[in-house]
Amino acid sequence: MTLVKVYVTYKKSILDPQGEAIKKAVHGMGHTIIQNVRMGKYFELTVSDNAQNIDAEINEVCDQLLANPNMESYRYEVMEENK
Amino acid sequence: MTLVKVYVTYKKSILDPQGEAIKKAVHGMGHTIIQNVRMGKYFELTVSDNAQNIDAEINEVCDQLLANPNMESYRYEVMEENK
Repeated sequence: MTLVKVYVTYKKSILDPQGEAIKKAVHGMGHTIIQNVRMGKYFELTVSDNAQNIDAEINEVCDQLLANPNMESYRYEVMEENK
Repeated sequence: MTLVKVYVTYKKSILDPQGEAIKKAVHGMGHTIIQNVRMGKYFELTVSDNAQNIDAEINEVCDQLLANPNMESYRYEVMEENK
């Protein structure tokens, strides 16, 4: 099995209301050293060993399901195979 | 400024309904090589340079705000300083 980690975040140009709300809460807790907060989605996909082209499959899943192409961008890491 | 990346996921013992739903959708798209999907939250925190103890601050923010200690676990990475 191979573990693929996917990170989906808002594009820089998009306002991140959740991030803003969390930043206010964090400052309310007294953690003013935290200057900015951006929130996104994180996925761990377990891929079977007989995958022909992991990159093509992961890109398609991200483009068509996990990330909204209008507002979000994604990146992923294919981790060392964990037997 | 220092970038800290935080990953919050359900504890292994907790059912991940969103992950299950995404897995079904992914299989419906024909990507049956994807055996399992776990979904979590991803945060990018920008921390100012005068932070005394980043680890203590980040742990407190995670314990008290970003992660639900009953159901979720978190890990974080302090990235190289991006001037």
